Amino acid sequence: MTIIDQLIHGFSRLPGVGKKSAGRIVYFLLKADTDYLNTLADLIKRLKPSIRTCGVCGTYTESELCNICSDSGRDSEHICVVEESKDVQTIESTGVFNGTYHVLGGVISPIDGVGPEDLFIRKLLARLTPNFSEVEVKEVIIATNPTIEGDTTALYLVNLLKNTDITISRLALGLPVGGDLEYADKLTLSRSLNGRTKLS
Amino acid sequence: MTIIDQLIHGFSRLPGVGKKSAGRIVYFLLKADTDYLNTLADLIKRLKPSIRTCGVCGTYTESELCNICSDSGRDSEHICVVEESKDVQTIESTGVFNGTYHVLGGVISPIDGVGPEDLFIRKLLARLTPNFSEVEVKEVIIATNPTIEGDTTALYLVNLLKNTDITISRLALGLPVGGDLEYADKLTLSRSLNGRTKLS
Repeated sequence: MTIIDQLIHGFSRLPGVGKKSAGRIVYFLLKADTDYLNTLADLIKRLKPSIRTCGVCGTYTESELCNICSDSGRDSEHICVVEESKDVQTIESTGVFNGTYHVLGGVISPIDGVGPEDLFIRKLLARLTPNFSEVEVKEVIIATNPTIEGDTTALYLVNLLKNTDITISRLALGLPVGGDLEYADKLTLSRSLNGRTKLS
Repeated sequence: MTIIDQLIHGFSRLPGVGKKSAGRIVYFLLKADTDYLNTLADLIKRLKPSIRTCGVCGTYTESELCNICSDSGRDSEHICVVEESKDVQTIESTGVFNGTYHVLGGVISPIDGVGPEDLFIRKLLARLTPNFSEVEVKEVIIATNPTIEGDTTALYLVNLLKNTDITISRLALGLPVGGDLEYADKLTLSRSLNGRTKLS
């Protein structure tokens, strides 16, 4: 196998990159700056050794605490529980949440052999005990994906926390903004009906 | 900028990779084998130093001659002229052409300041002179893209070669297989009409 074929094979393992786009990428690299190639290669090599998970919330970070947990301006009374570190970035990009996060590191999925004990739930419970820090957590917002696994995980957390004073909420399900009733699937539409908001 | 952001920025420069897919790739890499990351990084670094262009046809290769030019089983009486090295792979993937190739390294494009002298045309002419090798070239198949620049380049080559005994042809233009007349653009349809093939 030539180095071109090897690299096409390597790139085609990336998510969203098929064999054809991998080819396009490799031929692009052949014409690109050598500096860019070397920087890209170095970053890929350095990525895993440089990254660890935040000691408090479990998100990917280069320091002991992530930017959000170490930011005193963030409201630590609200914890948004997400499946993966990338979900933190997604929610951050909306700019509407000023609380903190907790990354579970996955979802309960019996089919994949993932149980609650495989997730960072113990760490979440520790954060919720009043003596963990000077701030008392008032609300846990469950932001797992609206899938069977995400729903199961949300239910598990609700059961775990229901005897506490902490408010537990979940992201609203409904029509996407700019969407069309006609193209909404039945399940989304029925969830949207059940979760309708009162206007007056 | 964190290393994650730097790498997202790096990947988003690749063709067909937006900021969102770059993010997906980086989070995938964070969970991938360290071996895979190191191999990918090494291949990217080694790519440009390992690759040169074939001394005869100009396609990317790791040796002096490319696989095709050094294969005595290929019919060197037919030369398929393409714009870029990647076009060789595309045509090879069809498996219907057993001739050899010639890579121009671009197309004539006055707007980008690319003239005939910037392309590997002199090398092509050398290959077509009878005393270049023991095999006499019988046909030059022009396989530049059906764009204004590709058409201009094809026309230039035709003018250059019209006084020789070499047959000059160009890839057929027409409806894509599996396509629908309804969705074909006017230009393709009119080219398809002009180039109609006789059935009986």
